[in-house]
Amino acid sequence: LSPPRRESIEVPGLGHKAPIPAASRIGPFVATGNVYGRDPATGRISDDPDAQVTQMFANLEAVLAAAGGTVDDLLKVDFKVASLSLRAGINEAWLGLFPHPRSRPARSVSQYDYFTPPALVHCDALAVIGDR
Amino acid sequence: LSPPRRESIEVPGLGHKAPIPAASRIGPFVATGNVYGRDPATGRISDDPDAQVTQMFANLEAVLAAAGGTVDDLLKVDFKVASLSLRAGINEAWLGLFPHPRSRPARSVSQYDYFTPPALVHCDALAVIGDR
Amino acid sequence: LSPPRRESIEVPGLGHKAPIPAASRIGPFVATGNVYGRDPATGRISDDPDAQVTQMFANLEAVLAAAGGTVDDLLKVDFKVASLSLRAGINEAWLGLFPHPRSRPARSVSQYDYFTPPALVHCDALAVIGDR
Repeated sequence: LSPPRRESIEVPGLGHKAPIPAASRIGPFVATGNVYGRDPATGRISDDPDAQVTQMFANLEAVLAAAGGTVDDLLKVDFKVASLSLRAGINEAWLGLFPHPRSRPARSVSQYDYFTPPALVHCDALAVIGDR
Repeated sequence: LSPPRRESIEVPGLGHKAPIPAASRIGPFVATGNVYGRDPATGRISDDPDAQVTQMFANLEAVLAAAGGTVDDLLKVDFKVASLSLRAGINEAWLGLFPHPRSRPARSVSQYDYFTPPALVHCDALAVIGDR
Repeated sequence: LSPPRRESIEVPGLGHKAPIPAASRIGPFVATGNVYGRDPATGRISDDPDAQVTQMFANLEAVLAAAGGTVDDLLKVDFKVASLSLRAGINEAWLGLFPHPRSRPARSVSQYDYFTPPALVHCDALAVIGDR
């Protein structure tokens, strides 16, 4: 039996309640589900917006690593936020991950009114993983 | 004349009022428009949420089939719902389509407030169709 | 030094305030950020909905051109609108760009309540650029 062409990508501590993987991979293509700022060690989401954003980006990196990639493989990242004021913190973390203006993924940020507290932000991403 | 590189994918009974196809294919890549729980035989959308969800998944399968694929080619499926309570029905249908935890597409579910009644749910999807 | 595998795509006059490119390209894959109806010459967004829609499509073409593509490479375009009444204008411009029913991208239109006036519409797109 050959392995399935499509692979579920899982990260310990970052599973969903629903029967869905953290991400899915087909060949070089990886799409994530919603990535939150949940601490994978404790299962908790901080009340602090900046802490959530920092943890969300760390989780996105962990999901990509589990898929065999890095943030350099990201083509697009879409954020939903409970308040557009979270953009400042997203921009700061973004500059840390993507310091080179000539090689950044595309991005969008949208306000969304139906987060389950204390969640204030999530993102999902599309990546194309290269040969290394 | 060679055929166009990009192909509109149509399914009888699942056309849109707008001048858009049910899905589009370029090479192995298929993106759908919004797939609703409309019965292609009658043109009607049931008032029953579970019936809508069941029909929406059947329609998604029909769109993928018209594009030359199956649900095994889905990389990501994004759902919009009039109420997050529809997730239970989505999960049940999802488990039927994707019984193997190691090979599932990524997924998101978002609440959306501007459905035209009786529509309560739709999804759109990205697929990468393999050689068979 | 080789160029980065992922390339930021920029268009003069269509930059974002945030540290993000107009689009990103990895191999043949291009994802845009949100494309607005901002006049790249003046930096202004018209108060007129039809003018915004017309300019937004012109900007989308400019972003694709900067990435080495055209509207014929679009696989999916997602629109957000302040009012669903903007669909009529989107449909009209759409038919001009995509006159051939057999070769159209997939599309969605969603209402979004958090535009910064006078913006009433934006889109983002996924394209697969072919050999020419």
